[in-house]
Amino acid sequence: MGLGDALNRIGKRAILCLREPSLGPVFGMKGGAAGGGYAQVVPMEDINLHFTGDFNGIALANNLLAALIDNHIHHGNELGFDVRRISWKRVIDMNDRALREITVALGGPGNGFPRQDGFDIVVASEVMAIFCLATSLKDLKERLGNIVVGYTRESKPILARQLKAHGAMTVLLKDALNPNLVQTLENNPAFIHGGPFANIAHGCNSVIATQTALKLADYVVTEAGFGADLGAEKFIDIKCRKSGLKPAAVVIVATLRALKYHGGAEVKELNRENLEALEKGLANLERHVNNIRNHYGLPCVVSVNQFTFDTAAEIALLQKRMAHHQVRVIMARHWAEGGKGAEEVARHVVELCETPNGFKFVYDENETLWDKIRAVATKIYGASEVTADSKVRAQIRKLQEDGYGHYPVCVAKTQYSFSTDPQLRGAPSGHVINVREVRLAAGAEFIVMICGDIMTMPGLPRVPSAEKIDLTDEGKVVGLF
Amino acid sequence: MGLGDALNRIGKRAILCLREPSLGPVFGMKGGAAGGGYAQVVPMEDINLHFTGDFNGIALANNLLAALIDNHIHHGNELGFDVRRISWKRVIDMNDRALREITVALGGPGNGFPRQDGFDIVVASEVMAIFCLATSLKDLKERLGNIVVGYTRESKPILARQLKAHGAMTVLLKDALNPNLVQTLENNPAFIHGGPFANIAHGCNSVIATQTALKLADYVVTEAGFGADLGAEKFIDIKCRKSGLKPAAVVIVATLRALKYHGGAEVKELNRENLEALEKGLANLERHVNNIRNHYGLPCVVSVNQFTFDTAAEIALLQKRMAHHQVRVIMARHWAEGGKGAEEVARHVVELCETPNGFKFVYDENETLWDKIRAVATKIYGASEVTADSKVRAQIRKLQEDGYGHYPVCVAKTQYSFSTDPQLRGAPSGHVINVREVRLAAGAEFIVMICGDIMTMPGLPRVPSAEKIDLTDEGKVVGLF
Amino acid sequence: MGLGDALNRIGKRAILCLREPSLGPVFGMKGGAAGGGYAQVVPMEDINLHFTGDFNGIALANNLLAALIDNHIHHGNELGFDVRRISWKRVIDMNDRALREITVALGGPGNGFPRQDGFDIVVASEVMAIFCLATSLKDLKERLGNIVVGYTRESKPILARQLKAHGAMTVLLKDALNPNLVQTLENNPAFIHGGPFANIAHGCNSVIATQTALKLADYVVTEAGFGADLGAEKFIDIKCRKSGLKPAAVVIVATLRALKYHGGAEVKELNRENLEALEKGLANLERHVNNIRNHYGLPCVVSVNQFTFDTAAEIALLQKRMAHHQVRVIMARHWAEGGKGAEEVARHVVELCETPNGFKFVYDENETLWDKIRAVATKIYGASEVTADSKVRAQIRKLQEDGYGHYPVCVAKTQYSFSTDPQLRGAPSGHVINVREVRLAAGAEFIVMICGDIMTMPGLPRVPSAEKIDLTDEGKVVGLF
Amino acid sequence: MGLGDALNRIGKRAILCLREPSLGPVFGMKGGAAGGGYAQVVPMEDINLHFTGDFNGIALANNLLAALIDNHIHHGNELGFDVRRISWKRVIDMNDRALREITVALGGPGNGFPRQDGFDIVVASEVMAIFCLATSLKDLKERLGNIVVGYTRESKPILARQLKAHGAMTVLLKDALNPNLVQTLENNPAFIHGGPFANIAHGCNSVIATQTALKLADYVVTEAGFGADLGAEKFIDIKCRKSGLKPAAVVIVATLRALKYHGGAEVKELNRENLEALEKGLANLERHVNNIRNHYGLPCVVSVNQFTFDTAAEIALLQKRMAHHQVRVIMARHWAEGGKGAEEVARHVVELCETPNGFKFVYDENETLWDKIRAVATKIYGASEVTADSKVRAQIRKLQEDGYGHYPVCVAKTQYSFSTDPQLRGAPSGHVINVREVRLAAGAEFIVMICGDIMTMPGLPRVPSAEKIDLTDEGKVVGLF
Repeated sequence: MGLGDALNRIGKRAILCLREPSLGPVFGMKGGAAGGGYAQVVPMEDINLHFTGDFNGIALANNLLAALIDNHIHHGNELGFDVRRISWKRVIDMNDRALREITVALGGPGNGFPRQDGFDIVVASEVMAIFCLATSLKDLKERLGNIVVGYTRESKPILARQLKAHGAMTVLLKDALNPNLVQTLENNPAFIHGGPFANIAHGCNSVIATQTALKLADYVVTEAGFGADLGAEKFIDIKCRKSGLKPAAVVIVATLRALKYHGGAEVKELNRENLEALEKGLANLERHVNNIRNHYGLPCVVSVNQFTFDTAAEIALLQKRMAHHQVRVIMARHWAEGGKGAEEVARHVVELCETPNGFKFVYDENETLWDKIRAVATKIYGASEVTADSKVRAQIRKLQEDGYGHYPVCVAKTQYSFSTDPQLRGAPSGHVINVREVRLAAGAEFIVMICGDIMTMPGLPRVPSAEKIDLTDEGKVVGLF
Repeated sequence: MGLGDALNRIGKRAILCLREPSLGPVFGMKGGAAGGGYAQVVPMEDINLHFTGDFNGIALANNLLAALIDNHIHHGNELGFDVRRISWKRVIDMNDRALREITVALGGPGNGFPRQDGFDIVVASEVMAIFCLATSLKDLKERLGNIVVGYTRESKPILARQLKAHGAMTVLLKDALNPNLVQTLENNPAFIHGGPFANIAHGCNSVIATQTALKLADYVVTEAGFGADLGAEKFIDIKCRKSGLKPAAVVIVATLRALKYHGGAEVKELNRENLEALEKGLANLERHVNNIRNHYGLPCVVSVNQFTFDTAAEIALLQKRMAHHQVRVIMARHWAEGGKGAEEVARHVVELCETPNGFKFVYDENETLWDKIRAVATKIYGASEVTADSKVRAQIRKLQEDGYGHYPVCVAKTQYSFSTDPQLRGAPSGHVINVREVRLAAGAEFIVMICGDIMTMPGLPRVPSAEKIDLTDEGKVVGLF
Repeated sequence: MGLGDALNRIGKRAILCLREPSLGPVFGMKGGAAGGGYAQVVPMEDINLHFTGDFNGIALANNLLAALIDNHIHHGNELGFDVRRISWKRVIDMNDRALREITVALGGPGNGFPRQDGFDIVVASEVMAIFCLATSLKDLKERLGNIVVGYTRESKPILARQLKAHGAMTVLLKDALNPNLVQTLENNPAFIHGGPFANIAHGCNSVIATQTALKLADYVVTEAGFGADLGAEKFIDIKCRKSGLKPAAVVIVATLRALKYHGGAEVKELNRENLEALEKGLANLERHVNNIRNHYGLPCVVSVNQFTFDTAAEIALLQKRMAHHQVRVIMARHWAEGGKGAEEVARHVVELCETPNGFKFVYDENETLWDKIRAVATKIYGASEVTADSKVRAQIRKLQEDGYGHYPVCVAKTQYSFSTDPQLRGAPSGHVINVREVRLAAGAEFIVMICGDIMTMPGLPRVPSAEKIDLTDEGKVVGLF
Repeated sequence: MGLGDALNRIGKRAILCLREPSLGPVFGMKGGAAGGGYAQVVPMEDINLHFTGDFNGIALANNLLAALIDNHIHHGNELGFDVRRISWKRVIDMNDRALREITVALGGPGNGFPRQDGFDIVVASEVMAIFCLATSLKDLKERLGNIVVGYTRESKPILARQLKAHGAMTVLLKDALNPNLVQTLENNPAFIHGGPFANIAHGCNSVIATQTALKLADYVVTEAGFGADLGAEKFIDIKCRKSGLKPAAVVIVATLRALKYHGGAEVKELNRENLEALEKGLANLERHVNNIRNHYGLPCVVSVNQFTFDTAAEIALLQKRMAHHQVRVIMARHWAEGGKGAEEVARHVVELCETPNGFKFVYDENETLWDKIRAVATKIYGASEVTADSKVRAQIRKLQEDGYGHYPVCVAKTQYSFSTDPQLRGAPSGHVINVREVRLAAGAEFIVMICGDIMTMPGLPRVPSAEKIDLTDEGKVVGLF
């Protein structure tokens, strides 16, 4: 976030493009999001509290479609839905594990036909993905109409279009599709628009925001959620591929704390110097660097968010290892100093942007779906193999046969490891990626592959942040950050 | 709606106070709402399409509480919830019958404890009622904390406060609590704020909006949904009682079409002169007039929304019957003429306001809950008796014993009849009102009594409006009105 | 039970006809059943422990039909079942409240179509009723084929016959249909066959057993469960009407304890003399006597199971009151003395049998269903009125229209009171009987009307008998009686 | 079955020990079971139609325990059941897929605590296994008491004993535990007792029947369901290990039809000579022979059920291949000729029995559970590997830690292949066995490992046998065989 300010400080016209925060984490584990210290976008509080209502519009559009499905079945089911094969789920912008698996339409003939259903969190929904990938209201409507909501007994797909749902859905989203303009503390512009999670969704802000920013500025700084295995891979293989965007350079953000954690240090020991753990943990950073340079074909710099307890020896070790790879490591202090603290990064980024690059995708769109997930798993995650039980394999095969083989894959996977095991730190190799579930997103035009135990509806922790969030008698919000 | 403009035209400072429309009817049967013809508030389209997000805030606050309940149980259930006795339901701003009765938290230990649950429509929720009755953010938080969300095995109530939910809920509502200011086509101000349905909820806009309007204007015109048996009764016995408001006069809005319908005419014949049906149907209007004058102690005028096919003979008959009761009947043409068309009504309203009135409630707050529902049923609905099966009677008894006896009752009942049978038109007498379900709203401070077959989650019709609502390629919304 | 032995002792050829006990009460509240003291049938233990497997055959036939329904729907649903309108329930011979309301066929396409379902206890099932009313294997098969198992979306009934289920069901019941012959401790014959409960079903042993007994003996003694309002009414209006049986005389069995209880005495005080309570409680006995003589047109005698703590004053009071009605009261001691103790009753019964009687039904089969339930409620139960909510009334009306109006009604009602309120002892008058649910039994050829809170699947008590039932190391069953 | 008769014909005292048939297949795919042609046990019809009620007793005992669990929770849950961790399922002797996954105890506080549940078929139940492994009524009761029915929130096991359920369960089973004696058509004795399926359960008749037979005869012939990978493996590793039985020789029953099928021939072509397919299919037989001789250490003979269309060339090929392995192939004609047709087999069996053998188990009881399943999978099934997802692995690890590591494993697997893929015929190698689910059977004293897609509740086919089973007007059962 500080990079945008820094670029402006060194005289470049730069705009930030960020994702909108979900209420799930706000009330769950992590509290609000929108930067911190002197590198913030404002009005931070509003951004974190259903803001301009975009997520609400997305939830309403999603749930209108769901209501129309059950209503259609109730009134005669002319399209022949098999109630056991409805793939469209309801959503809510909340961490609510009780809604993961539910049975609906109980209570007799007046309430429709009973079936199993479930809620996802808004940020994992296909409408969110469509919203972020659409290039215009017309494209949005077209994509919404293409959504496959379920199947007949004979496994023939049924589209949102057949329910005449896409028009009203688009109407619900028409205002939301306009990017939200905010500013940094240093009064530089930022777009905050769309917010798919990077672990369970494609993890990038909207195409419309990015393209608008590109028209207005010379440099557009965007973030791709979580590690370069998640957000960045999807940014490239999905967002860039679909929208024709070509990134110029990558800033890998690291902290010594995280690297020591990846090297095996205990969470509570992370503030102590630990060269051995750092040494081991650097394998994680090297994997990210390698992915970006060799698999995405882009130049990169490592920007380290500096903490007061980072020691000189640690920094030296980090720089030495990166020097091997001809990658610069720059200590950034924008948290404490705002844009000024990231000027060195900004200058190096400008340099990198001026060098021609060999940008490429991880896989070709003509490869089969299975080859695509294997490419991501083996090249990016370091896995040796992809597995799936026979039902899932059959589904993938059917998607390939039904003409969806040219879609990219969107992997849902834990953000804590290159593998699907959150405990496996560092840069694991030889692990197996199991595809547990596959979902067709015909409107978003990709295939979701859910790997490992990750879920598309998070739960709240034992003591949720919500307990601490409060409004004082003076009307001040506390506990949000 | 035209009355506000008319009052302003005759030189009075007047403000309208209206309810925000729910998306349920927008996508369901009736399409958008916010007046019509020349008597509209604008921006009409935005008002009908999740507007400033108030309902979203209400839904989020409601559902955050629900998520915290299930999460609390999942993480050890320290408060001792009996999962079969959780009374808090989730909500959505949608007509979705499939969500009326559901089973949640299926899927194993990771997803919480299975239980039966259900969704209500937002406008029927207790948070909506609290929102509309709260006098300040502090009062809002206090009331949210008082919500009884469920019971222990020993039937001890558990409050939202005990879950520490009310702070975060208030934070989610802090912006929504500011009334939304819009204007009429004649540029007079109107507040649109809060929107409980009048059949399944208390049916009035927010106290805050009304009180704000009273500070800014000499005349505040408000609407109370559906017939004077529903919206008006609750406006008086709940909103006025709780907030200290004292209405000055009542305008009963009627149409000859509706009166003929109540007299037995077929829907498709309503545009034809039918004096016989009108004669019979007038009993319905007389009941409303009687209720307002004798049971609420307020002066009234009948304002007839004139249609081109209303005949002179019909108008004469109506006026003759009302003359008996010393009630003026004024033909209003604001739909066609704007405020000008309602000037005569406005002038008469000003007269009525200047006369002292004998405003009173339908029942005293010290009566028992059973006596209160009986008072409403016999005095206002013309019923001979109130019944309830033994379980419901026991619940009412328990509420009385637990100290909730001084609360007003909020009846949920069909809007199509004074009785609970939608087919029974006119002014039925001697019918029986069966209380099917009772719900404590300890935050809103009333007791909901659900009578007859009405449901707190509507369903969509065979051909929902949503099918026709669309966005043209030029970005214009069609099919909304 | 002692009466059979007594009749044989005084030189008459008599056979007992009894119902088989259900495992529900055996493991639930009451323990085993089959008489007591010296008035038992043997092998008592075997009779109480799934005996010759008749109930098992009934459960299997019932559940085969259920499995065929869900299987039919799974494989294409050619008959067009509406899964929300399946009326056939599964059964088990167990008190198991958890099975009252369930959702089945969850888990995906391989497991069928989800729907709401429930289990009844075997003794409340239609197959049990059919089994007890069938006159031959052929009749049994015919009736099984006639069962209405559910309805299409258009509410057209679907029969077991259409599923080709009745042949296999009959095969499962072919051995069970043979009456089970046992003997009393005095070596007189008894048939034990079929066992519908008298509160939630028609309460009589099988027609086949009774008719077999009538061919073999001059006197057939049968029991009709619970009070003369339940077992006896159904014995007459259903079993006798359908099979052409004509009872000759009625023995009303009473205890002073029960009469004092009906007069308001506390359960733990029942062994103390309490003339006042007895005086009041006699109203209950008088109602039974009146029902039998005036409504069924049969002569009767009151046989009192004597207990050691019955006092002379109490007996005198009882006899005096009954003398008014010209009904003899005879103290019976068969529990202690076997058949000898009931000889006086036997002799009087023989006398009564030789007097011509005016046997009649409570209602005519040509009356409407509503008139039938009203006849039973007002004449036999002393109620002032029958009520039902609009859905139930509509169902009754539809059954009448669909050609089932000539069927008798089979009331399910608490056995603790003439009313539907188990607390209302004595001989209540003026109470209201609410019909909560109606079920068509087209194979049994009656209409079940469930009144009040009674359920067709009982639950186990806090400390079920099952906890005490055990097999000793010597192989002896303990805790059963 | 003919072997018993044949042994008797050649002068040996021999008794057959068979399993009782389940109604599942009787009404499902396959119709009745109990041999065929001249090799039958009688009364065949009764044996197939709930016979002496043993399965009923088992179902009742099983379901009583289930009812006691839910009842205990309803009445206060003193033992602290976590409703999400109840492992005890209900059972029914029926193929009923709709009962595989259900939700019970819906409908409010009176019906208990909602939870997910399911029914298994009786033959897959732990009570059936216990019944078949128990050596006395005392042992039966002890084992029933040991059943682990569920867990607390802290994952502490709760036993049937703690619910005081085992006494009553034993009482329900006391008569059933006596073996049922029937006879062959040649009047030789046979025990039919107990009937676990061999794919989803341990697949052997009761220990009590076998031990009784061993006391009465010199030769006891028993069958172990399905291929030698299923029934035989469990017979040895579970039944023999637990009861101390030592088999003397094995008769592998084969048909040329089946071998050609395993060699890839189409089902409808099996009656045509096809040497190529036979050649390939023989690999399947060789695997069985190898398993028996090398892994179980027993001598064997191949007995071929001869069909009229078996050709001389096929028989020669079969004999040649088996000659390689020094295994005799004998053509048996007992279907057509009764015991006479199997005399040659009988004589060779007597020879084999007189040779000392090296009987051994597939694994040692001290190996870990994981090593045991691996031993079975690799040695017997020819698999290369055993897999399981992390939850299942964790469960296995926990069972090992909780002290159940010394139990044998009981594999549930398709009977159509050595692998878990029913399509994989012949003798597949290198395949992977995935353990999908693990169940502790602490009463039966083994660990069930469910591999692949097999289910413990079968479903009915599109046209179930039940449709054809009927009782003629003359009382004759048709359609059963």
